[in-house]
Amino acid sequence: MKFLVIGGDAAGMSAASRAKRNMPDLAIRVLEQSEDVSYSACGMPYNIADRNRPIDDLVVRQAHVFREKQGIDLLTGHRAEMIDPAAKKVTGITTDGQAFDFPYDKLLIATGGSPIVPDISGTDLPGVMVLKSLADGRKIKNYIQNHTVKKAVIIGMGYIGLEMSEALRALSIDVTMVKPGPVLLPWMESRLSEVVKEELAQNSVDLHAGQQIERIEKKGEALAVVCADTTFEADMVLIAIGIRPNSAIANAAGIELGAAGAIAVDKNLATSNEHIYAAGDCADAYHVVTGQRTWLPLALRANRAGWAVADNVCDGHTELPGIAGTAVFKVFALEVARTGLTIPEAQKAGFTPAGVVISSRSRAHAHPGSETIWVHMIADKKSGKLLGTQMVGKDGVAHRINAIAVALHGQMTVADFSQADLAYAPPFSPVWDPLLTAANQLLKKM
Amino acid sequence: MKFLVIGGDAAGMSAASRAKRNMPDLAIRVLEQSEDVSYSACGMPYNIADRNRPIDDLVVRQAHVFREKQGIDLLTGHRAEMIDPAAKKVTGITTDGQAFDFPYDKLLIATGGSPIVPDISGTDLPGVMVLKSLADGRKIKNYIQNHTVKKAVIIGMGYIGLEMSEALRALSIDVTMVKPGPVLLPWMESRLSEVVKEELAQNSVDLHAGQQIERIEKKGEALAVVCADTTFEADMVLIAIGIRPNSAIANAAGIELGAAGAIAVDKNLATSNEHIYAAGDCADAYHVVTGQRTWLPLALRANRAGWAVADNVCDGHTELPGIAGTAVFKVFALEVARTGLTIPEAQKAGFTPAGVVISSRSRAHAHPGSETIWVHMIADKKSGKLLGTQMVGKDGVAHRINAIAVALHGQMTVADFSQADLAYAPPFSPVWDPLLTAANQLLKKM
Repeated sequence: MKFLVIGGDAAGMSAASRAKRNMPDLAIRVLEQSEDVSYSACGMPYNIADRNRPIDDLVVRQAHVFREKQGIDLLTGHRAEMIDPAAKKVTGITTDGQAFDFPYDKLLIATGGSPIVPDISGTDLPGVMVLKSLADGRKIKNYIQNHTVKKAVIIGMGYIGLEMSEALRALSIDVTMVKPGPVLLPWMESRLSEVVKEELAQNSVDLHAGQQIERIEKKGEALAVVCADTTFEADMVLIAIGIRPNSAIANAAGIELGAAGAIAVDKNLATSNEHIYAAGDCADAYHVVTGQRTWLPLALRANRAGWAVADNVCDGHTELPGIAGTAVFKVFALEVARTGLTIPEAQKAGFTPAGVVISSRSRAHAHPGSETIWVHMIADKKSGKLLGTQMVGKDGVAHRINAIAVALHGQMTVADFSQADLAYAPPFSPVWDPLLTAANQLLKKM
Repeated sequence: MKFLVIGGDAAGMSAASRAKRNMPDLAIRVLEQSEDVSYSACGMPYNIADRNRPIDDLVVRQAHVFREKQGIDLLTGHRAEMIDPAAKKVTGITTDGQAFDFPYDKLLIATGGSPIVPDISGTDLPGVMVLKSLADGRKIKNYIQNHTVKKAVIIGMGYIGLEMSEALRALSIDVTMVKPGPVLLPWMESRLSEVVKEELAQNSVDLHAGQQIERIEKKGEALAVVCADTTFEADMVLIAIGIRPNSAIANAAGIELGAAGAIAVDKNLATSNEHIYAAGDCADAYHVVTGQRTWLPLALRANRAGWAVADNVCDGHTELPGIAGTAVFKVFALEVARTGLTIPEAQKAGFTPAGVVISSRSRAHAHPGSETIWVHMIADKKSGKLLGTQMVGKDGVAHRINAIAVALHGQMTVADFSQADLAYAPPFSPVWDPLLTAANQLLKKM
């Protein structure tokens, strides 16, 4: 049997590696358009922050290891351009212009996502960059090394933009963040996002929300981000307004699309074509709280979906229940985390949400190192079901959110959760963990 | 209605305070034998470690606040000696020798636990101390302040002993730990307890397990802990071999005892007498994994049980599902956590446990600050149900355990848990959190 994979990033390579472990005789070919496979994309901001670390520190496994040690026919510099589902083959072109044509019995589309670039002039100027692939990271790193970058403008205020603001400040680069929308993090409860704003202000990151960006232009040796009312000068510009799923190749082959234009997959990761799977940032997923399709391109899901595809290709039967929408990022000293739904998302999904915001201490009464933790917790008034939680704080936020993620998978009510036997010791939490305090307060509103 | 509470610590005072909030007209009287109420007992080792912090920093709310602001008739220096369930009254004696006699409609027994003192001579010598009450903490603190303590022996190697080893080392006191049993932490998987042993060794704590302790004696200005084979000299001795529930007063009144000699309570916290509740370290609880009675005297349960009693006394109906057996402690740089059952406990409860031990990194590939995390995870081969987890490591153990605690409350299988959408960002975990890696490995053994 021939298992062909388009895309050699998290989903594609984890599928290929696991399929080979499952069935050593399986013929596995991976088509990757770049030269990079198996690297920690999420680690790029932290690598960029450190001039002394080469970007290749982020490579987890090199291409030759997949080829020589694992026996995977990994073809880098191979760009897939068309899927022919009737003939069960994929055609494309290599970096040096050779056409290729590979048959498959089972195909995995793991084409990932691409950074969204706004439709304005100047996005192609030198010094205007995005951050998604390792090549992007290398480009940013080289640019900073080879130019005098004293000032950067980041267009967008999502988590990549925020992580990069910290990375650039660590390099003593002045940072201005600009976006057209009026709110820093629109999904975040307003008191929590105020905490993020304060942290950015304390680290001299200049925020300009609500700026219509008209163009980027060259201005002497520097660049200028020209907005309706004002202009921001910079030595480099990072565009970080989000990504879109690379689903065009699937769409052109008649495969159904799902949430947010991503490839629709069932719980087995199969697309509308029974011989074709999709996994990673190009594919959608079911949300365990709503039961509906959603698109949240994150690394754990990509790896897990890759494994599930491998098992299903190898005659197994692995179903993924779905995602809870858990995400965490660090911005300077702050940990910011969420899982589940926001109030507007809950309303849209047909729930009747009630929410609370509490602040508490991260450690016990009088214990040194205690910091404020903010918790926004949401539940459905009708069923009592826990729907989501957001947290911000400097101590113990990142791992705390996982307790709620598990509760969402377990379809727990806020009353159930409020009885959870969470760990207590003075260096780690108050007797009533902030999550329990939030649940207790939320119960009063139910 | 008259609500009488015996014991003014966590369970007693949280019951009294909440009952007063629930029903401001309720007549609430609390009998406390000591002069201390509402303090952070678990914070004592950390307070003792710091010469500059007065012990009273640990007091959360002073007695007069309960009396004057909350209208609770809090009587300190009042030792309850007998419950008469037929006459519905409690008799006792005050510190200055006055007999008292109080009626009740509803009674809460919240008498806590007492440190176990071994039946050997010399435990009453000056400088031989225990640590349970604030008075104990004050005594240790004063002793260290007023004597030249260069060397301490701790009898016992439980979490209080281990926390105190760190506290005493912080005061530059040499620490030797001695116990008759052969194993440092008998409940802990052996590879994990080796990690704890190494941490203690690196901090110059001298461990002597398997020592039969014969007596403590005065030796010049110092003390000597005399064992069968050897003698340990010390300037102070801490006895920390565990606590027992203070259930004698209940037993004498004909109230049924449950697990480990603690007062048996149902999910409403009612004892075998319908007018009498019990909560805190003197009472038992249901274990959410086994469904059986267990006794785990910990602070969160005490507070939660106090609240539930208050609600039930005030015509509410609050049932506590039980405890998962979650506990965490810090010993030097290590975080040690557990929830659920050990393999022997699982076997005893009728499960067919399978277990794995894995080690993983606490943060992403190549991310600074990453430490090793050890995870021991246990599930039932027959049902697939997750039964328990133990963890040891220097980064992110304490809060990680809560994800498992919630899974135990939700009666999740290890397959369910392995699909949990846990938070990932490089500063906080690998893509596959150590808990997921453990679950994935454990699935292979099911």
